[in-house]
Amino acid sequence: MQVDASETKRQAFFQTVKQLFENELPFNRILGIRVVSLGADTALIAFSNRDELMGNIFQKTLHGGVISAVLDTTGGVAAIASLADRFSELPEEKLLPIFGKIGTIDIRVDYLRPGRGKDFSVNAWVMRSGRKVAVIRMELRNESDVLVAVGTGTYMVG
Amino acid sequence: MQVDASETKRQAFFQTVKQLFENELPFNRILGIRVVSLGADTALIAFSNRDELMGNIFQKTLHGGVISAVLDTTGGVAAIASLADRFSELPEEKLLPIFGKIGTIDIRVDYLRPGRGKDFSVNAWVMRSGRKVAVIRMELRNESDVLVAVGTGTYMVG
Amino acid sequence: MQVDASETKRQAFFQTVKQLFENELPFNRILGIRVVSLGADTALIAFSNRDELMGNIFQKTLHGGVISAVLDTTGGVAAIASLADRFSELPEEKLLPIFGKIGTIDIRVDYLRPGRGKDFSVNAWVMRSGRKVAVIRMELRNESDVLVAVGTGTYMVG
Amino acid sequence: MQVDASETKRQAFFQTVKQLFENELPFNRILGIRVVSLGADTALIAFSNRDELMGNIFQKTLHGGVISAVLDTTGGVAAIASLADRFSELPEEKLLPIFGKIGTIDIRVDYLRPGRGKDFSVNAWVMRSGRKVAVIRMELRNESDVLVAVGTGTYMVG
Repeated sequence: MQVDASETKRQAFFQTVKQLFENELPFNRILGIRVVSLGADTALIAFSNRDELMGNIFQKTLHGGVISAVLDTTGGVAAIASLADRFSELPEEKLLPIFGKIGTIDIRVDYLRPGRGKDFSVNAWVMRSGRKVAVIRMELRNESDVLVAVGTGTYMVG
Repeated sequence: MQVDASETKRQAFFQTVKQLFENELPFNRILGIRVVSLGADTALIAFSNRDELMGNIFQKTLHGGVISAVLDTTGGVAAIASLADRFSELPEEKLLPIFGKIGTIDIRVDYLRPGRGKDFSVNAWVMRSGRKVAVIRMELRNESDVLVAVGTGTYMVG
Repeated sequence: MQVDASETKRQAFFQTVKQLFENELPFNRILGIRVVSLGADTALIAFSNRDELMGNIFQKTLHGGVISAVLDTTGGVAAIASLADRFSELPEEKLLPIFGKIGTIDIRVDYLRPGRGKDFSVNAWVMRSGRKVAVIRMELRNESDVLVAVGTGTYMVG
Repeated sequence: MQVDASETKRQAFFQTVKQLFENELPFNRILGIRVVSLGADTALIAFSNRDELMGNIFQKTLHGGVISAVLDTTGGVAAIASLADRFSELPEEKLLPIFGKIGTIDIRVDYLRPGRGKDFSVNAWVMRSGRKVAVIRMELRNESDVLVAVGTGTYMVG
């Protein structure tokens, strides 16, 4: 039986990203973000509704700020995913400072439908990945696959 | 001595908005938002840094999602402020359902500088107020008057 | 043999939209826009490169303003397409005033790659169609299927 | 009498920018753009209404694409203005390739009011100028000082 070294490294990279985004960023813990998967240029995160995340007491829906926060965060995870080929060989202590330089330059969020639901997922995919900036689109859906919000963000990546 | 009835009503309107945004929306309590003042077409809110609001463990700065949440919220308060003339005569129980129909259609946020600081303020002013939608600009500054982020939002108001 | 009345009406509606956007709007004639097809919630337009549309004399590429103009226009055509079910029974003289009320509230354009090419197409699809506003996404590609730019627009539709 | 060398250089820089934007970019000639002034971090352009620039045959107003084109262009001029300190010493033949690398990454345009009027002006000011990207805001007004549209753009500058 053969060990696939690159798959092992890819898994270690994923675990580093997951650990960072789920546990090290205080506000992400409030959001309850779980990093579900990373692709070459994609990211998938999930989170669940809680009373603390509600913004509208009349409609019992997600706060708009929660929606923009999870879209922004998933875009940031996808930005990191797009760097994996370049950086996945690095040990964790060298990865974290690189991640620390990644940042959102600007974001647009479209609130399409009320954020009703129990469990939510956000997909992000990189539309263009350059040496300096990446442009990424995000979509937030509830457990019934209703499209709640979409976003487009420009991220500094180098 | 004469009582200024319209000023009294304006104050009651302000207190209703303040109470709603500070106490009734769970996520706003996490953000620690304080509604400082309302003008005819403007709003000013304040909040203070706390560990829970941090997004970057390397730079100790506000989470981008916190920034977009407070910009979005201040825009929503300004959208309500722009309706005061129309609605400030109404008793609180009639105001709340009207506020519940106000919502963000879309928002753009520009993250200009790292969100460093102890105390932050967000100004919002209405650029256009129509029967159906309002367009509002927002600016987030820290206690040293550093411009941290700006935003533009389109809000449903009728 | 039976005549399909609704298909006939749909075709007349398409011809009205095509005539309006291609011939009646002076700036669209400068852009050389051709309305290729309308779906229930989609639109496809095409245009060809010409010297007048260039913005960068060093790279011989489309002017950014041309790109945003064709994205905005295709979004507007898709906004009209989404109204076809409601309005396709109306005669042309009643349609034009309705179209005249449709307008862009705001738009975001992401310039992903230089606008090189000979023939360009723009797809637009409605992400949410409400009674008052529609949110629409657009994508501009060249004849080699290179994604040059994407956009998201909010349109007043009622 | 003393010659102010830096003022002379600043004037030469302005004339280079003016010549480039007014005469060398074919689409700008269609728009009829005039570069009125450059500041350290600001730009002012002007243009006049013409039949070719109309988008709405019912309301005789500027085409949305014209509005986004002039906002985008004025932002680009302001991006160049913000580089003047770094580059104004260079001769024209070295400036043009630098200008050719400046480009819009993304832009948001808010169409606030119908583009009615005879003469229009667009102001742009740099909100943040970094080594790689600049964030710039723009405002379009008619001759009666009516605010027709505003925009925010992110530009690649290095």
